[in-house]
Formats: sequence, structure tokens, C-alpha cells
Amino acid sequence: MEHLAARLREFVRVRDWERFHTPKNLAMALAGEAGELVAEFQWLTAEESRDLDEDALRRVRAELGDVTLYLVRLADALGVDLAEAANAKLDDSERRYDPETYRGSARKAPR
Amino acid sequence: MEHLAARLREFVRVRDWERFHTPKNLAMALAGEAGELVAEFQWLTAEESRDLDEDALRRVRAELGDVTLYLVRLADALGVDLAEAANAKLDDSERRYDPETYRGSARKAPR
Amino acid sequence: MEHLAARLREFVRVRDWERFHTPKNLAMALAGEAGELVAEFQWLTAEESRDLDEDALRRVRAELGDVTLYLVRLADALGVDLAEAANAKLDDSERRYDPETYRGSARKAPR
Amino acid sequence: MEHLAARLREFVRVRDWERFHTPKNLAMALAGEAGELVAEFQWLTAEESRDLDEDALRRVRAELGDVTLYLVRLADALGVDLAEAANAKLDDSERRYDPETYRGSARKAPR
Repeated sequence: MEHLAARLREFVRVRDWERFHTPKNLAMALAGEAGELVAEFQWLTAEESRDLDEDALRRVRAELGDVTLYLVRLADALGVDLAEAANAKLDDSERRYDPETYRGSARKAPR
Repeated sequence: MEHLAARLREFVRVRDWERFHTPKNLAMALAGEAGELVAEFQWLTAEESRDLDEDALRRVRAELGDVTLYLVRLADALGVDLAEAANAKLDDSERRYDPETYRGSARKAPR
Repeated sequence: MEHLAARLREFVRVRDWERFHTPKNLAMALAGEAGELVAEFQWLTAEESRDLDEDALRRVRAELGDVTLYLVRLADALGVDLAEAANAKLDDSERRYDPETYRGSARKAPR
Repeated sequence: MEHLAARLREFVRVRDWERFHTPKNLAMALAGEAGELVAEFQWLTAEESRDLDEDALRRVRAELGDVTLYLVRLADALGVDLAEAANAKLDDSERRYDPETYRGSARKAPR
């Protein structure tokens, strides 16, 4: 992922696109790609989504790639370490969702 | 990121949440978190988004963490390598966006 | 909906919020609210989503209200008539999706 | 809007698409269209977004049409009155955002 951040930084620099890559605009681009990703699944049943055909998997992989690019780029622009941020949130969830209490349940834990 | 995928797999397993974590549902969760992320920036100017205050940066880092968790979890459920998928898309963009032609321009390249 | 647009315009004016309500920012706010809406459904089965309990329906109605507010506000800021725009897209879909050919099928029609 | 809901109901019925139009799936479709809408604005400045050229406005109008279709369809599937839901949320905001206190400010009111 660090390699990817560096590669993106250079990609943007040689095209003189820094002016477009504000955190605000990158967050919009990420939301747009997340929208394309969710659209790939919108008419599939739960079962179909677990067993994508070759064409659908190819499209989903491309959307996952796009989401990753903007996520890495946005984190880089803000100086945020994604693995650290994700692990911190998962620490949080482990505290909030006691396995005994929440086994097999989708309800939300209190904050 | 591989460590994160394994940690998440275990987190889900001990809570018996696999039934909820279909690719369809994970794509929805990712889109939901991307929505919370974009909402953090909605009233900020371009300049303000480049220079977040401490509170805003803390909230944005938490949202970036959430997006990362669902992205890693979804890719793991589908057997997709995120770095590979992202690098493939960036290869694509390097081909489509010739630096001379697209310098300083935000217009879209033809497919 | 016209009454709503007028009510919103006044709501914004007396708070001096026009500076925040650029079409760009309103599109972000709409995407944020659509993210909250999709999050309400993320762990529900298809069947559960057809038969929301009272609490879930109350939350979903609130999210639908928020999406509507930003949609009406954005259209008003751009001078777009939503009913006209929606009917034009539906005309399009009626042309593209011949009932015989697409009966019971979720596949996409060519453009 | 009522006319639109009825027109959509018939459009879906003659294609036998009711099985696809669960509230869950419709919320996903709405989020996908909101993503396409926000993407139209992602590289524009605040000023550019207030003054779209003809091509951009045509694309944005089409996206607003798509968002409206899925919003009306989802509300119809759930038996929610959109104007009522939106007005209720606006009543709420009028209570929470006292004009004196929040004039020219984008900060959030306490719940």
C-alpha cells in the first residue's frame, strides 16, 4: 500500500493534478466509486453475491481497485495511516461487541 | 492489510456473523461508510479540507478506518487482492491519461 | 414538492447559508444521506426489508425525508424540474427495456 | 410524484420485476445513483458547480432523474409519503437550528 501511495503521488504530479486532489474532492471520488461498487450487487440475491460469475467478478475487482486507489490517495493527502486507523476501529468494535452478547445478532451496540 | 483480513475473519467467526457478511451486504456497509466520510467534508471549502482541525481529522481518520475495514473484509470474502486490483487500474489510467494531453485537465479520457 | 422547495429556500435564507449550498456541496450532502439510508438495510434479508418493524420504519422514513430535502434543494439550486427529469428517464427505460425481452430479467439493456 | 409512483408500479409490473424491487435493493440502487451524481461534481470548484455548462447540466439532470425514480419507487414500496417525511425533518431542523445562533455557521446542532 505504501508503494501504491508513492506511485499515485507521482501519477498526479506529472499530470499537474494536485489542484484537483483536495481531500474534499477525493472523498467525493471515493463515494462515487463506492456507489459503482454497490450498484454491481443491487439486483443479486445474497447467494448470487457469494458466487459471482466471471464477468461480474471482473467488474467488481475493477471497482474494488478504484475504491482502493482513492482511499489510499485520500489517506496520503491527509497523512493518515490506513492500517493504523482500521486496527484502532477494530479494537473499538472488539470492546463494544462482546462475543457472548452479540453472537449471531446484527443489532448495534451502544456507543 | 493481510494481518487485518485475518483479524477480521476471526472477529466475525467468534461472533457467528458470517451469515451477515455476504458480499452484497459488505458492499452496502462500505457505501454507508463512504457516505459518512463524504459528509465530513460537505460544508468545507477546498482549502478547509486541506487543513482539517484536530476534531475533524479525528473523525475523518475514524471514517477512513471504517471504510478500510469493510473494503478489506469484502475483498477477503471475494478472494480479491486489493493491491493487485488497484495497481491494475492504475496501469490502465497511465495508458489512458497521457501526461502531455491531460496536464492540468480534469476531463475524462475515452475508454 | 414546490412548496417544499420554497420552504427550504426561506430556511436557508434566514440562516444566511447560501454560501454553503453550492450544487457541489448539496450533491455531497445527498450522497451522505443516501449512505445513511443504505446502512439501515445492510444487515437485513430481502424479506426483512419488505417487512420493517416500527423502529426501523421510523428511521428509514427519517432518512427518506433527508434525501428528499437535499434532492429538492439541489434541483432548485440548478433550476431542474425533478418530475420532468424523472419522467424523461422513465421514457428512456421504457424504450430500452422491451417487456417481452426483459421480463423477469435483471440484465442491463445496451445504451 | 404520485403519478410517477403509479407509472413506476406499472413499469415494474409488466416486466415482472417485483422480485428485484425489495426495499433493500432499491436503497442500493438509490445509493448507486447518488454516487453517480456526486461524481459529476467531484473535480469542479464551488463556482463551477454553480454555473454548469450545457453538457454537464444535461448529465446532472439525468442523474437527478434517476435518483428521483428510485426514491419515489422505494417510498412507494414502503408506503412512505415523501413530502410528509421531508416536511417533518424540516420542522425538526427549524427547531434545532435557531436562526440567531446558527446564522452563517455550518456547525452541527446537538440532537
